Amino acid sequence: MENLKGITTRKTNFADWYTDVINQAKLVMYSSIKGEMIFRPNGWMLWTQIQNELDKRFAKYGVLNVALPTFIKYSEFNKESKHISGFAPEVFMVTHKGETKLDDPYVIRPTSEVLFCEYFKKVLNSYNDLPIKLNQWCSVFRAEKNTRPFLRTTEFFWQEMHCIFSNEKDAREYALNIIDEYYDFVTKFLLIPCIKGEKTIGERFAGAENTYTIEALMQDEQVLQCGTSHYLGTNFAKAYDIVYQDKTNKKQLVHQTSHGISTRLLGALIMSHSDDHGLVLPFLIAPYQIAILGINCDKDHNVSTMIDNLSTKLSISYRIKIDKSNKGLGYKLSQQEVLGVPISIIIGPQDLAKKQVMIFRRDTSSKEFIAIDKLEKHLVELIKQYQNNLLSKAQDNLNKHIYKINTLEEFKKTLKTPGFILAPWGGDEKDEKKLKQEYGITPRCVHSKIKDSSTKCFYTKNKAQYLVYFGRAY
Amino acid sequence: MENLKGITTRKTNFADWYTDVINQAKLVMYSSIKGEMIFRPNGWMLWTQIQNELDKRFAKYGVLNVALPTFIKYSEFNKESKHISGFAPEVFMVTHKGETKLDDPYVIRPTSEVLFCEYFKKVLNSYNDLPIKLNQWCSVFRAEKNTRPFLRTTEFFWQEMHCIFSNEKDAREYALNIIDEYYDFVTKFLLIPCIKGEKTIGERFAGAENTYTIEALMQDEQVLQCGTSHYLGTNFAKAYDIVYQDKTNKKQLVHQTSHGISTRLLGALIMSHSDDHGLVLPFLIAPYQIAILGINCDKDHNVSTMIDNLSTKLSISYRIKIDKSNKGLGYKLSQQEVLGVPISIIIGPQDLAKKQVMIFRRDTSSKEFIAIDKLEKHLVELIKQYQNNLLSKAQDNLNKHIYKINTLEEFKKTLKTPGFILAPWGGDEKDEKKLKQEYGITPRCVHSKIKDSSTKCFYTKNKAQYLVYFGRAY
Repeated sequence: MENLKGITTRKTNFADWYTDVINQAKLVMYSSIKGEMIFRPNGWMLWTQIQNELDKRFAKYGVLNVALPTFIKYSEFNKESKHISGFAPEVFMVTHKGETKLDDPYVIRPTSEVLFCEYFKKVLNSYNDLPIKLNQWCSVFRAEKNTRPFLRTTEFFWQEMHCIFSNEKDAREYALNIIDEYYDFVTKFLLIPCIKGEKTIGERFAGAENTYTIEALMQDEQVLQCGTSHYLGTNFAKAYDIVYQDKTNKKQLVHQTSHGISTRLLGALIMSHSDDHGLVLPFLIAPYQIAILGINCDKDHNVSTMIDNLSTKLSISYRIKIDKSNKGLGYKLSQQEVLGVPISIIIGPQDLAKKQVMIFRRDTSSKEFIAIDKLEKHLVELIKQYQNNLLSKAQDNLNKHIYKINTLEEFKKTLKTPGFILAPWGGDEKDEKKLKQEYGITPRCVHSKIKDSSTKCFYTKNKAQYLVYFGRAY
Repeated sequence: MENLKGITTRKTNFADWYTDVINQAKLVMYSSIKGEMIFRPNGWMLWTQIQNELDKRFAKYGVLNVALPTFIKYSEFNKESKHISGFAPEVFMVTHKGETKLDDPYVIRPTSEVLFCEYFKKVLNSYNDLPIKLNQWCSVFRAEKNTRPFLRTTEFFWQEMHCIFSNEKDAREYALNIIDEYYDFVTKFLLIPCIKGEKTIGERFAGAENTYTIEALMQDEQVLQCGTSHYLGTNFAKAYDIVYQDKTNKKQLVHQTSHGISTRLLGALIMSHSDDHGLVLPFLIAPYQIAILGINCDKDHNVSTMIDNLSTKLSISYRIKIDKSNKGLGYKLSQQEVLGVPISIIIGPQDLAKKQVMIFRRDTSSKEFIAIDKLEKHLVELIKQYQNNLLSKAQDNLNKHIYKINTLEEFKKTLKTPGFILAPWGGDEKDEKKLKQEYGITPRCVHSKIKDSSTKCFYTKNKAQYLVYFGRAY
């Protein structure tokens, strides 16, 4: 079933709804290459807002932006064995330069650990140089069998932060700091509540000692990984010979971390807040935060002037767009709904005579009249309500769908709409794979260590080591 | 001959000087792949400033940013024959996805005309949709035999703007508007004076009807192309079937334009302003505009407090960095010189007692004392002087090295340090090639049409058609 805007309802088919919202809001479209996504202006503006916000947050830690090459020599890529085996089946290979065959082909970066290692090796001399904290915004490439916009694409955009430290303590601490920063960013800027924790061994990043993650629950009760932070130990330092001279002139290996979020977050954004009328956006990320819509602007000079004045005033604090066209109000409002503009202010001759305007709120679809001289103050309050409402709706969805279970029977009952399954776990990597094959469910992150020796793993019935969040992941 | 900072002088060897400045200012370094450049934080900050400034300028024209894929299907790439033949020898080919060979290999974009055509075809319906003005910031890839940082690299960053219009007039006008905008940006923001004009047929962009360019003269009297703007006519529209319904419901081909500047501009920036002491940067692009350097901060609490207060105040208007370390003042100043910080303010206990600070100006290496209560006002004046000085020095260099010639003999005399050679031209594409092979000189742009029928081409001795600027190009 579709609504008037050509959007399938969530109840009818969640996957179709997702695609319809993306298409109607003109966020992205596919190119002629399988899984290659084109960001249209509306989609790219969202990503730009994320970039700006994170750049500000990273600056607090002294992180500097760089830009590294897209190509990696195949021979270089092969040096860290766990890393290469994690990515080998997914990489694209450049074999020809014009007509000429390359002796050592190039891998198109699926991630840039190798290049950052090369970088660090070149610039690092002594302990005085440490820590070094670098970040790059770029696209990376992975051959995917099943592709979906934002969630799984051949090429996707991300930020990857790579840092080196003189000691384990600082590196471990930083890996935790950054996952906390991601958590804060995702909950406060994108208003997506998350569960934060460490990954199990089977779900760790290839080459990492510890991987920390934030995981969010979508409206269909599937889980989406929103950001990861890795402590890489000295694994890459050993493979790529990244050493520094310490205070006693001895050579020491660096301790390394890496951290990333990607355009998958835009998928999370859509599936957390949007509804059957289209996109719903948190106020801080919305490319246009307030739309000012005119009624009869062409006929009524006062309306047109009022829009201009209001737009000038509000533009100081907000990202504003105006529509003075002679299209019907219904059409104009419907457009703002599809595009996810949080607040619309409607100005027409009749209300203007009463010195008032109408306000339309995207999240509740509610309309109200406000005296013009109280508008600015009212907006501040309205935005607060809007933000709180978005976050608390999403938080309710998360809270409602955490299922505590202890046995395989209980586990099976949750499978239709799994949400987060919180269960005792004592399995190893093989058990994780088996669980995934049988039920399509994976460990998302560890909740806590189990001290009580009598608790059994719900799946293997061995002694349980950890209380773990499981879910069906995007 | 090198100076104390390890920088070869310009007189000794201009090419070595260029590389030394880049290395000492820590702008970029090479990766292990030939011609693949790594942007270090100092280099990337320069490019970020350019991006921010141009994004603001493009917004005035209603240009929106998008992000298109890096891969183009080889079969798609082949459709516009002139275009493909212009790029074929330079493109990198992706032939494998993991272990699997691709049926239709991917070209890694050397430019994105093909992808934008695909885009336009998908979104364009009627005349109501036009014009569409899109821009993307990305890297493109071309196999180059001889590479030099910023000037010629395997992968380089640029912005490519692609627009479609309903008619020829608007498209032609826009191509001229954007070359004017580039000219304004390069002369006012980068303080690089340019010569603006149309390219000859032989130097046109592959697939364009007209190519407009801005060309600047470096300190070694070689010419660097700083930006181009193309009117593409309906060539791509025909090849890729980009049509719209006009007001009478007839199908019409769109008229297309494209426009770009690249990280080559950073090469132009260095070779226009820098000197034997390192980088010299225009005030507006400098990542740090003012450095506040302390003397004896660790011993004198007042100095440290003064630096903090001044930094807080000046940060409202300028990008500030401070150095309170206990390194010597000579070392600190020398660092600002190499990095190209326009103005340094030196604060020490003795001057503080006299309620004054010392100011160091990067462009003139001059020092002066200023009363603290006059500092802010003085800075405004100083920055004006600094900017004027940079531009007028570069303008002098340009003015001095325009050589008007009429014969081959006169032409040969200019060849050692050619600058801009302004000469009557009546040759065709083949003559352009011959001239380049014989003398390494190419037509940079057309000055004007020659109406007088008696003027002869300096090279072919045919009737001259145009007065043309020639030069040895980077």
